[in-house]
Amino acid sequence: MGKAITSREADYAQWYNDLVIKSGLADYSAVRGCMIIKPYGFALWEKMRDELDKMFKDTGHVNAYFPLLIPKSFMSKEAAHIEGFAKECAVVTHYRLINDPGGSGLIVDPEAKLEEELIIRPTSETIIWNTYRTWIQSYRDLPLLINQWANIVRWELRTRLFLRTAEFLWQEGHTAHATEQEAVEETHRMLEVYADFAENYMALPVVKGVKSENERFAGAVDTYCIEALMQDGKALQCGTSHFLGQNFARAFDVKFSDKENKLDYVWATSWGVSTRLVGALVMAHSDDDGLVLPPKIAPIQVVIIPIYKGAEKKEWLQSKGLELAAQIKAAGIRVQFDDNDNSRPGWKFAEYEMKGVPVRIAFGLRELENNTVELARRDTKEKMSIGIDGLHVKIQELLIDMQQQIFKKALAYRDQHISKANSWEEFEQLLDGKGGFVSAHWDGTGETEEKIKQKAKATIRCIPLNNPLEEGKCILTGKPSIQRVLFARAY
Amino acid sequence: MGKAITSREADYAQWYNDLVIKSGLADYSAVRGCMIIKPYGFALWEKMRDELDKMFKDTGHVNAYFPLLIPKSFMSKEAAHIEGFAKECAVVTHYRLINDPGGSGLIVDPEAKLEEELIIRPTSETIIWNTYRTWIQSYRDLPLLINQWANIVRWELRTRLFLRTAEFLWQEGHTAHATEQEAVEETHRMLEVYADFAENYMALPVVKGVKSENERFAGAVDTYCIEALMQDGKALQCGTSHFLGQNFARAFDVKFSDKENKLDYVWATSWGVSTRLVGALVMAHSDDDGLVLPPKIAPIQVVIIPIYKGAEKKEWLQSKGLELAAQIKAAGIRVQFDDNDNSRPGWKFAEYEMKGVPVRIAFGLRELENNTVELARRDTKEKMSIGIDGLHVKIQELLIDMQQQIFKKALAYRDQHISKANSWEEFEQLLDGKGGFVSAHWDGTGETEEKIKQKAKATIRCIPLNNPLEEGKCILTGKPSIQRVLFARAY
Repeated sequence: MGKAITSREADYAQWYNDLVIKSGLADYSAVRGCMIIKPYGFALWEKMRDELDKMFKDTGHVNAYFPLLIPKSFMSKEAAHIEGFAKECAVVTHYRLINDPGGSGLIVDPEAKLEEELIIRPTSETIIWNTYRTWIQSYRDLPLLINQWANIVRWELRTRLFLRTAEFLWQEGHTAHATEQEAVEETHRMLEVYADFAENYMALPVVKGVKSENERFAGAVDTYCIEALMQDGKALQCGTSHFLGQNFARAFDVKFSDKENKLDYVWATSWGVSTRLVGALVMAHSDDDGLVLPPKIAPIQVVIIPIYKGAEKKEWLQSKGLELAAQIKAAGIRVQFDDNDNSRPGWKFAEYEMKGVPVRIAFGLRELENNTVELARRDTKEKMSIGIDGLHVKIQELLIDMQQQIFKKALAYRDQHISKANSWEEFEQLLDGKGGFVSAHWDGTGETEEKIKQKAKATIRCIPLNNPLEEGKCILTGKPSIQRVLFARAY
Repeated sequence: MGKAITSREADYAQWYNDLVIKSGLADYSAVRGCMIIKPYGFALWEKMRDELDKMFKDTGHVNAYFPLLIPKSFMSKEAAHIEGFAKECAVVTHYRLINDPGGSGLIVDPEAKLEEELIIRPTSETIIWNTYRTWIQSYRDLPLLINQWANIVRWELRTRLFLRTAEFLWQEGHTAHATEQEAVEETHRMLEVYADFAENYMALPVVKGVKSENERFAGAVDTYCIEALMQDGKALQCGTSHFLGQNFARAFDVKFSDKENKLDYVWATSWGVSTRLVGALVMAHSDDDGLVLPPKIAPIQVVIIPIYKGAEKKEWLQSKGLELAAQIKAAGIRVQFDDNDNSRPGWKFAEYEMKGVPVRIAFGLRELENNTVELARRDTKEKMSIGIDGLHVKIQELLIDMQQQIFKKALAYRDQHISKANSWEEFEQLLDGKGGFVSAHWDGTGETEEKIKQKAKATIRCIPLNNPLEEGKCILTGKPSIQRVLFARAY
């Protein structure tokens, strides 16, 4: 700590990497594309995970755990699914190491080759639907509303801490339903849960929409998503909820008998968010001094730092600080008292700013004699002298206000960065200039979408829910279009 | 459900498998040796995990996450460690699948071979200590008290649900210290945490002790353990805490400068418990009718079942049941109200017995008119009629009593099954007869230990902490011995 980070202005990508490393969220590992989630980053993920887990349970879901390893043959069963994942599968081929008789050290034992190779799960639809076949016979077994928290491996070529790593942590919901309508409702329900979480916990405004065919999940009938905007004007997909139709039920032969005793394939959904959300949080709110964390998910909400001048009344300052901390903790606030003598107050101030702790309380002798403390809020950098009496109540109010202000700021930025383009020129100018979402007409074909992606490096992020119909002409081909869709350059 | 399970008497191993499957804890998977943890089993593991996690945090530890995949070369760095794990490593050799140009379907792309093979972690000392090298420079960086919750793969040949599976879930603590004494203290601290959790949450009495050299963790200086006894007289290792000395610091060159600016290797511990604990819980307490779960970790503590005769006053019974459930829930008790019409009360009674729900409340019209309910406790099968007024208080008291009774019963069984053997004959008779722990003299050599294992299929479970010294003669070799140690046949 102590060293400054690159500014956003100078190099946004470098700012992000510096920040993730210096705030102690994550570190690089010895394994290509895999990162280490450090204790502070994991505490943040735990807060997010616990809130989401509660929301899943409140909507009737239960957790389970399916195997990490998937037989290769399972991957072949759903045609679109293979296409999507075969290119980035980590493959287990052997189950033993031995000492090389030739003396070259530890080698893979050629005798210990698996009959069928195993894939490390890139997502678990296949192994889960292979299991559901034995769990589902009748409509009485439905719905199955199961989620799992797990690690995932996708052999990505270009990785970036949290945003795209070869291994990541996520949750994946896999539900099974008796009717199409129920499954569609579930898909939407979980999209709403994700949007609710993003906006009300992460203070991250999102656009809810449906993906174009090109951007659909491999094996889905429809993919819904929440899309957010980062401070560099690029979009980030933050969560997806897929209506899978009967595709996986057909691939794995999962049928049920309905109330009339008629056999039919089961309807499915899947939905997931990952540690990528930590990256979204960092990119959306933070500044050149470090993280800015919304209070609801900040691992530490308040830090208390006593300031000694020499040894004078040091004990009194310490005991007063502990007393304040206890009072604040009793109000249900996550507080840390830092009277570590190894570092000086100025260093500590910078450290907790870097870590994005929402509220800093500092005091020396003079403040205490006046029955006040100095309070600094991380988001606006505002400092104020504030009376000690009823401090915990004032902090509670402040945390609520900060949560709202951080959201409002991000919302204002996002809303200023949704622009309409009515020609290709305008389209490119917007993307190269202010960035953000560009709302433009498109002829509805995958071919045009692909050409736009090649020419402008922008993709269709989504067709927003309840998108108004509007006649127009495709910005690339000039062919007729029935609605605008949201384009952006994206992570 | 509905079908009975094999009795313990008839076939203990089959009883266990039947019970795990029929109570909905787990299921077999399509992948050799890997199991599926079903929602009820996962809810149980979550309760255990959450309590343990709290205990770890209360003792100053933080969570982090390290990569699943470990470079093969890392495994070679600590000599004893390779010996222990090389034989059971799942090895990733490729990172892509392609469609066979020859038409045989999806195959491993020979072009996508990794330069260095990756091992799926069988435990994470190597990757973590390789990381600690960059995190630790000075005594100020110590201690590092890090835990991770993760999945592990060890290619076991003979597997059994929960007790021994190719993939399992666990936590692994990895701590780094400036002094030997601190590291030894940490090793003992975590052993105490495990014993506390086993006895006070799982109601499972354990013997705390140290392993013989043969049974030590690969790479440890000392391995401490908690050992429990199952109902068939076999022992089960339930948790281990390792003092690693400076072995991994030397292997990965992790040095720190102390207060006098002298460089030294860092001292280490590691400690873990796994989903095996779910197996221990099942085997220790359950009976021929199903699971018996200690209230503190039962996912559902109380089930309420209204009994209708036709439609008469059905609504009144339902609303009364919901009211009771709300009252009990408000008292902090995990309660489920089951008025599902698809199954009959008798079937439900059997189902909740199978699932080990500690308390069952049932009532019909007659009970309600008398302002009573029928209460059945799962452990003793006792039924009683009990007044509705203040029901939640009575249940709270009952749950506390049940927790204690389940522990006392297991403790009495365990204490009756620690026997002394003073000759080889006695030793074999005890193992073949009543089973349990056999306390016997041993000459202290690994050679003798191995011979005893071959001849009697019993291993040294541990040398109990504070073991009294006692002169004697080894039961196998007759050579002098300074103390008895605990042998048992074990899982």
